[in-house]
Amino acid sequence: MTAITVPELSPVTRTWLTVCLWCCFCFFLVELLIKAWPKPNSKTASTYLLSASGVIDLMAVLPIPLVLLIGVPANTAWVLASLWLLKLTAFVPGLALLGRVVALEARPLASVLVIFLTVLLFAGVALHILERAGQPERFGSLPQSLWWAVSTLTTTGYGDSVPQTFLGRVIAGIVMICGLGVFGLWTGILATGFSAEHRRRDFIQNWGLVTRVPFLRNLDPPAIIELTHMLRRLDLAERTIVVRRGRPGDCMYFIASGEVEVKVEPRPIRLSGGAFFGEIALLEGGPRTATVVTTLPSTLLVLDVSNFRVFMANHPDLAKEVEMEAARRERSNESVLPEEQ
Amino acid sequence: MTAITVPELSPVTRTWLTVCLWCCFCFFLVELLIKAWPKPNSKTASTYLLSASGVIDLMAVLPIPLVLLIGVPANTAWVLASLWLLKLTAFVPGLALLGRVVALEARPLASVLVIFLTVLLFAGVALHILERAGQPERFGSLPQSLWWAVSTLTTTGYGDSVPQTFLGRVIAGIVMICGLGVFGLWTGILATGFSAEHRRRDFIQNWGLVTRVPFLRNLDPPAIIELTHMLRRLDLAERTIVVRRGRPGDCMYFIASGEVEVKVEPRPIRLSGGAFFGEIALLEGGPRTATVVTTLPSTLLVLDVSNFRVFMANHPDLAKEVEMEAARRERSNESVLPEEQ
Amino acid sequence: MTAITVPELSPVTRTWLTVCLWCCFCFFLVELLIKAWPKPNSKTASTYLLSASGVIDLMAVLPIPLVLLIGVPANTAWVLASLWLLKLTAFVPGLALLGRVVALEARPLASVLVIFLTVLLFAGVALHILERAGQPERFGSLPQSLWWAVSTLTTTGYGDSVPQTFLGRVIAGIVMICGLGVFGLWTGILATGFSAEHRRRDFIQNWGLVTRVPFLRNLDPPAIIELTHMLRRLDLAERTIVVRRGRPGDCMYFIASGEVEVKVEPRPIRLSGGAFFGEIALLEGGPRTATVVTTLPSTLLVLDVSNFRVFMANHPDLAKEVEMEAARRERSNESVLPEEQ
Amino acid sequence: MTAITVPELSPVTRTWLTVCLWCCFCFFLVELLIKAWPKPNSKTASTYLLSASGVIDLMAVLPIPLVLLIGVPANTAWVLASLWLLKLTAFVPGLALLGRVVALEARPLASVLVIFLTVLLFAGVALHILERAGQPERFGSLPQSLWWAVSTLTTTGYGDSVPQTFLGRVIAGIVMICGLGVFGLWTGILATGFSAEHRRRDFIQNWGLVTRVPFLRNLDPPAIIELTHMLRRLDLAERTIVVRRGRPGDCMYFIASGEVEVKVEPRPIRLSGGAFFGEIALLEGGPRTATVVTTLPSTLLVLDVSNFRVFMANHPDLAKEVEMEAARRERSNESVLPEEQ
Repeated sequence: MTAITVPELSPVTRTWLTVCLWCCFCFFLVELLIKAWPKPNSKTASTYLLSASGVIDLMAVLPIPLVLLIGVPANTAWVLASLWLLKLTAFVPGLALLGRVVALEARPLASVLVIFLTVLLFAGVALHILERAGQPERFGSLPQSLWWAVSTLTTTGYGDSVPQTFLGRVIAGIVMICGLGVFGLWTGILATGFSAEHRRRDFIQNWGLVTRVPFLRNLDPPAIIELTHMLRRLDLAERTIVVRRGRPGDCMYFIASGEVEVKVEPRPIRLSGGAFFGEIALLEGGPRTATVVTTLPSTLLVLDVSNFRVFMANHPDLAKEVEMEAARRERSNESVLPEEQ
Repeated sequence: MTAITVPELSPVTRTWLTVCLWCCFCFFLVELLIKAWPKPNSKTASTYLLSASGVIDLMAVLPIPLVLLIGVPANTAWVLASLWLLKLTAFVPGLALLGRVVALEARPLASVLVIFLTVLLFAGVALHILERAGQPERFGSLPQSLWWAVSTLTTTGYGDSVPQTFLGRVIAGIVMICGLGVFGLWTGILATGFSAEHRRRDFIQNWGLVTRVPFLRNLDPPAIIELTHMLRRLDLAERTIVVRRGRPGDCMYFIASGEVEVKVEPRPIRLSGGAFFGEIALLEGGPRTATVVTTLPSTLLVLDVSNFRVFMANHPDLAKEVEMEAARRERSNESVLPEEQ
Repeated sequence: MTAITVPELSPVTRTWLTVCLWCCFCFFLVELLIKAWPKPNSKTASTYLLSASGVIDLMAVLPIPLVLLIGVPANTAWVLASLWLLKLTAFVPGLALLGRVVALEARPLASVLVIFLTVLLFAGVALHILERAGQPERFGSLPQSLWWAVSTLTTTGYGDSVPQTFLGRVIAGIVMICGLGVFGLWTGILATGFSAEHRRRDFIQNWGLVTRVPFLRNLDPPAIIELTHMLRRLDLAERTIVVRRGRPGDCMYFIASGEVEVKVEPRPIRLSGGAFFGEIALLEGGPRTATVVTTLPSTLLVLDVSNFRVFMANHPDLAKEVEMEAARRERSNESVLPEEQ
Repeated sequence: MTAITVPELSPVTRTWLTVCLWCCFCFFLVELLIKAWPKPNSKTASTYLLSASGVIDLMAVLPIPLVLLIGVPANTAWVLASLWLLKLTAFVPGLALLGRVVALEARPLASVLVIFLTVLLFAGVALHILERAGQPERFGSLPQSLWWAVSTLTTTGYGDSVPQTFLGRVIAGIVMICGLGVFGLWTGILATGFSAEHRRRDFIQNWGLVTRVPFLRNLDPPAIIELTHMLRRLDLAERTIVVRRGRPGDCMYFIASGEVEVKVEPRPIRLSGGAFFGEIALLEGGPRTATVVTTLPSTLLVLDVSNFRVFMANHPDLAKEVEMEAARRERSNESVLPEEQ
């Protein structure tokens, strides 16, 4: 869609692009009508139009004909097609996450913003006073001076207005250093909040998956918590190779849902939800002893070798159980077997 | 106030703005007089004028008439109205926090500043020597060269003075990379300190609130500490909806002060300070079973679902108590009940 | 190689450089032939050419003669010699690590990228609408406007296109601040992921080394895990001085492999794999009592004084053992002795 | 010294500045002679001249007369006075710290540098190929193109060379985003390493101080470790006010060395090394009950209220002891008393 929006001002292919744009427009119009129409008895039409997604759908359709009616030239009108991008945002989980982070960290972020604005204003006023005489067309008014200040404080540095006096440059240098500081605070708050939110969401998702694995569900609660923090979710499509025979092994897998096939010699073995595999390479430090392929779309939980060792060290009884299972599998000359039989 | 300060240089509406500014000025003057006057017997007037807020109030009032008396044109004089912004800073908790962070991290920050200044000086001297011949008007003196260095080292890059020789550009490249490094140190120190201070302040606030909830107060001290780190404070106005029936539940609430109303069928139930609610959705993983609204301005402590699970796993007796309470509430066909009866 | 690539456009030394470049070219060609040729019976030739390193080797050899054949001037053709740099990347562990980080953090990074692109597009559209009238040659088309937006949002700030209207500048200021925010998120995610990956890789490496030291191998598993996190690997060449007599001591050493010589008076003592040294300075807080030099290429595990104290506090029996060994060494008037005798 | 170096190119005061500079020069010369001369029997003179500080002292003295002899004009020669700044670096602990961080994190930093250089070279080559035709004077050679690339990748953005083609701008946009990423990695590694080093150094310093306080020395080792991480060192001059009566109390103090005076009514009490004070305000949540002033230069260990609560919760016996001491002090109607009597 961006590609369509962007070249709409190129000279020759304009007609084709306009056709494409009208097609998109019609598609969105029809989508809106279908969503708003079918149940006239209930009040869903108005509810939908007033909800967030309804407003976005309306904004994708309404403004373009409106501005065309007013008499704005078509080139300009199609710029509004960029509003279609808003429809994409519904599919992006990151935006919801970012919203939550901003809401939770609102107070420190606001503090930094106030500091930013204070430095901005004082820098603007100082440069206005200092540089007004020398460069009236650049620092002659406070808004012009603030424009310089914002471009300097964010270390953007357009270079369209630059202080010339000695004192002005000293202040500019201090403003730049303050800019780095403000930036640092902002960075730190957002980055910390974002990663904390991500960990939190992963924890909640993994918790739901861990409780589906019988072998893990029977651990005592603190161990489940510890393990949930260690596991990483892996969603795989059908017929994907999970581990390949002979490659070095650096993690083991629990099957939360789906099914995998272990390519061992006499005949392949199928493992389904609740089983685990890949522990032999971790215990013995050698390469993978068999290739494993998913047969259904599967959700696996990955336990990294470093976390595996930490967890096994803290839970010796579990370690013994995993080792026994691995020994049994190797004894029967088959690399991987379902754990419950 | 910023809005008033900024457009004071626009042409036509100047008279109105001047009137507004004089009004503000009079307001601050009267405020100052009231604060300094009324108790002439005590020595508060001079104490107040010498305190931080007194100095700020004085600075908001004194300079403008002074510079007008000297004969500075009015436009220029009003620039001093930006000093009024200082009065706002008293209301910003972030500034106090930032001050504390800077005080605590003074030594590493000073170290980085020294590194910054050293790199700055050497870059300035090197470029002065290298570029002097080619661009005497830009690198002909050390201050000019240092101006280039500060604008490069902070990655602002105005582009008003740019090295032209090969060696000069190599050094400029190294200076930019050093700039990123210095920036990184600065960022890291400030961000770490700021977030540590925030956590500390939240801990102290939450500790005070936790001890008001009887159910939590009776925990053993390490558990209280653990919980205090997990809780998040939430201040709500009267008649705010806390949870909405049917929405997914991702946290439970303890009431530190105030009162909430649970909208259950036979008749709504009121919960006041010390009670908790919202635990049923967490225990059963389902949606909220009732809407809860505050009836008074309330302070709630929010326990997130991920922290809830960690805490319940570490404190099985408490988990049992919460589960029993939830079961009792559900049995009596009412979603939420006060815990103490 | 970079040095060769870069000055290839300087005037006089061109002939010599071309000779050098042809030498490099021949070297890579021969290397490619050797790798692809010798085993014609197996299918290694085609396998190799289709593997990642084969493709890189091909890209180092093929393009230059090809473009010379097409008739491109030699100067231009040699620019393709920069593809040789790709051969270097195979030796850089950091790139593999970075790849892993990007793969693991793909979802948050993609979220941030979407946020970045959304802000970019809206800033571009807004400035296009606002500045089109005043600066048609700079903001007259959306691509031009997006060019401004990307240069502003990344705080690069070329200054070739700068908004002139008041509203345009206000939006530009907001875009810069958003840029800092986006930047912060990006920074935070990458930096966190990179350092986590590094810790993980160090842990796996150290684990392998710790299990070679008998004194440490007999610890209980949680202690091994704790210690593995604390140790730092140090690879030293033959005849390197590890500690120097009289210097302050801030760490102790375990020998994972290799051999060291302790310069004590009657005759130097040799310590080999499994022994430890340097603990006396930590226990007594004094300077090093002897100089230690490696006699073979050695891998040491370094335990810092702060970690040493934490570990000894948590494992009093181990502390006693280390103290006894130190006392025995001092009693026999020799600073360091092999532990197993 | 910077002040002297910088304005040395201003017109009129040149003579005075030259005199100042010659004085400094003579001072450094004399210092060098004194350090190198007095013990001719030992080999300290040559040892000193070959040591790091000797080389720096030499560099402060030698180059200026040398270049004056060669016939360089005096203005230029004095630029070398900036080498005097190197003498300052010996007093900056941060530089040693930074050196350690860079040494420890050398491998990840080198990885990022290689990534940086790879992106740099490919961006330079790409823009050289794309923009050569349109802007031969800016992108006509690889070095020029690399200059653009380094200024863009570090987000400095001078704006002296800017891509004009569509594809060139797309690549420039990608380079800027890569720049943010590289920057982020760099920032993360340095900041993490720097703060880890600071924590480590503080731990080592605090450990030495904690063992001087009898009340803390008798804790079991893990508790000492925990407390050492919590304490913050505070060095105070003679007659400094530590706490002021009536102010809110947010920390307690242990005296590592020195002496303080507690201003209580009948007669002030002196507390010396090993005692603690300030715990009453923390236990009761009220304001400080007495003013405390140092009588000698003192080193205090500060325990913050949040850490105080965590520590007391984990060590109930210690909590009881502190509470008993506080109660005894209050009972005897004196706010603070030495603990050992």
